[in-house]
Amino acid sequence: METPWESRYAQRTQRMGSSAIRELLKLTEKPDIISFGGGLPAPDVFPVDDFAAACDRVLHEFGAQALQYGTTEGYLPLREMIARHTARYGIKITPDNILITSGSQQALDLLGKVFINPGDRILVEEPTYLGALQAWNAYGAEYVTVPMDEDGMITDVLEEALRAGPKFIYVLPNFQNPTGVTLSVERRQALLELADRYGVPIIEDDPYGQLRYEGNHLPSVVTLDGQFRESGSMPYRGNVIYLSTFSKTLSPGIRLAWVVAPQEVIRKLVQAKQGADLHTATFNQMVAYEVSRGGFLDRHVWMIRRVYGERRNIMLEAIEDFFPKGVRWTHPQGGLFLWGMLPEGMLSRQVLEKAIEQKVAFVPGDSFYARGGGENTMRINFSNATPEKIRIGIERLGSVIRQQMGIKTLD
Amino acid sequence: METPWESRYAQRTQRMGSSAIRELLKLTEKPDIISFGGGLPAPDVFPVDDFAAACDRVLHEFGAQALQYGTTEGYLPLREMIARHTARYGIKITPDNILITSGSQQALDLLGKVFINPGDRILVEEPTYLGALQAWNAYGAEYVTVPMDEDGMITDVLEEALRAGPKFIYVLPNFQNPTGVTLSVERRQALLELADRYGVPIIEDDPYGQLRYEGNHLPSVVTLDGQFRESGSMPYRGNVIYLSTFSKTLSPGIRLAWVVAPQEVIRKLVQAKQGADLHTATFNQMVAYEVSRGGFLDRHVWMIRRVYGERRNIMLEAIEDFFPKGVRWTHPQGGLFLWGMLPEGMLSRQVLEKAIEQKVAFVPGDSFYARGGGENTMRINFSNATPEKIRIGIERLGSVIRQQMGIKTLD
Repeated sequence: METPWESRYAQRTQRMGSSAIRELLKLTEKPDIISFGGGLPAPDVFPVDDFAAACDRVLHEFGAQALQYGTTEGYLPLREMIARHTARYGIKITPDNILITSGSQQALDLLGKVFINPGDRILVEEPTYLGALQAWNAYGAEYVTVPMDEDGMITDVLEEALRAGPKFIYVLPNFQNPTGVTLSVERRQALLELADRYGVPIIEDDPYGQLRYEGNHLPSVVTLDGQFRESGSMPYRGNVIYLSTFSKTLSPGIRLAWVVAPQEVIRKLVQAKQGADLHTATFNQMVAYEVSRGGFLDRHVWMIRRVYGERRNIMLEAIEDFFPKGVRWTHPQGGLFLWGMLPEGMLSRQVLEKAIEQKVAFVPGDSFYARGGGENTMRINFSNATPEKIRIGIERLGSVIRQQMGIKTLD
Repeated sequence: METPWESRYAQRTQRMGSSAIRELLKLTEKPDIISFGGGLPAPDVFPVDDFAAACDRVLHEFGAQALQYGTTEGYLPLREMIARHTARYGIKITPDNILITSGSQQALDLLGKVFINPGDRILVEEPTYLGALQAWNAYGAEYVTVPMDEDGMITDVLEEALRAGPKFIYVLPNFQNPTGVTLSVERRQALLELADRYGVPIIEDDPYGQLRYEGNHLPSVVTLDGQFRESGSMPYRGNVIYLSTFSKTLSPGIRLAWVVAPQEVIRKLVQAKQGADLHTATFNQMVAYEVSRGGFLDRHVWMIRRVYGERRNIMLEAIEDFFPKGVRWTHPQGGLFLWGMLPEGMLSRQVLEKAIEQKVAFVPGDSFYARGGGENTMRINFSNATPEKIRIGIERLGSVIRQQMGIKTLD
């Protein structure tokens, strides 16, 4: 059907692509496919009863407030709780340093809207989170990339990238999406020193920081940026904007996340959010607060770690058993993903086509490269499928890879 | 505190202003102020018990789905329900013509993102909805305006505005925000004919259409655009994009609205929404569906009409009693607002300052003028305050206006 709208799209609309991840979510709706594609939490860890109790309490005690318009900044008790929680990690902030957003994706969109002029360069890890690229492409961002290894962004080559004059650095230091890799403390410090020397600020995206299954918690980049004294909570310096979310600890279906930033930046983000969606659902903020308070979140995250840690182990074992020689993969200490690297020249998109025929799915890694490349890589999620399905799915995937490599299989 | 962010804002950030309405919402938090400022529903009409029952049912029957990521397009049963509802008004659409958004404000933002290049002209009523201006200013929109009278946009002067080559026309035909005025059927037809002649498509924003307190329902612009045969449901032609919301019928605090558009436009909006917030909260969509189905919404809207209709009558009576000669006002047949016009040369912002001292508030009308003007106008909300407070507040406001006009009061 021809309509007068078709000739009227803005130039930026040409730059928006549909997300490979979103398209894959549609595949995962078919119940017979074992999908390692999405970044979905396990549905069996959702605290359904706690949510039901919280909804009941919020509606019957504060119904008139919960169903009404709210302020753009977000529900104050929730921001206060986040400020207290942040202080535990050594950073003193006030609720005025916090904006509640409709998921981290909105935080990325608002940051793009407020900071990115068409043609601005953003420094990102290679590969990096696809959602950030999607959000920022709409504002005309260009990218400078820094390659990664098992210790995260290779800071030895960061200086060269900084000379390109990026507007800011975007980094996911913990169990990165898509690679599962963690930035070492030494590199976190090197990153901060170089960023400081070149006067380039940092956006630290930390959706998975709580989900560590082995090793010790590493101080976040924003915390290290504050540590100019020996101990105790440090006042927030503001060079690092920090993002986190309730999606991986509580529920993604309530769309609730937050930004920590200097007050002046929060004020600009608030103006942008007024135009974008007025405010995040009051009801959801009050329910999340009600569910989380009194230490529930700490206990709940403990349980999630146990479930996902087991799934990670099972997936790593299955990969060891079923993937052929020549394939490499990361050993994430937390998070939701690991990263597979097929032999050079092999195309993971071709593997995916065959894999779907065998009822197993993953995300081809090239989607996560801001400037092309990574055609032999794959992002594999281990949080969503049950242990049994993980083993079956990896066996199927291993046999598809073997076939593509021309290796004779035993069966 | 000086941070490296301050020198890094995008150019568009300069064009974003903070909303007068949002700032006023902060005033309304003081319990001793009678605020006619916000566009807030009455808290006493919220169906709190129905919400509590729906939350319980959704969580216990579909908890794993409700708390999980969902598709960007929105929850299918909700879109099917909206499609059925739209058919009642004579327009046949499928769920593929519908995108669920995080409030109508997000629909405006996504339409701006997808359609507006910097410098594009948008044709709007004068005055028009402030939220649309806020959303579109960020994309560099310019405006062509058409003045209004008691029958809405004056279509006699529309042709001149169309010659400026606007990208689209934005119109709120029912009980417009801010004026409360309704576009007559004759003018709806004139609007469609002229838009068709100049090949300019229309965005129809209809948040209040259900809230009519007198007179007969008028066919929406999108319905009239489809009526090329005599009777029955017409296939959707796609020239008019139609927006509506659950904010005024169910609750604004759940942030739930929808766009009706050609499938091709929906696909572009979906891409934009992926980058903006991935999807609207699954939980909220499922709860809204659960609350609304089985005819609840029709019964509930009936009750809202009774409550708001009474408040409108009481406000009109009080204005008649307490406002001095020389002040004019509209007689809205529905919606949430009426529009006051002070004598030429009087400044409603000055009146507001004095009014706040007397513990009563409204929104100065100049905020709603895309190209300046309206300094003597005021938007007055009648849905939120109780009948008793409406009468007291209007009495206070009348006495402030009298004082500003230099009229001696009786007390």
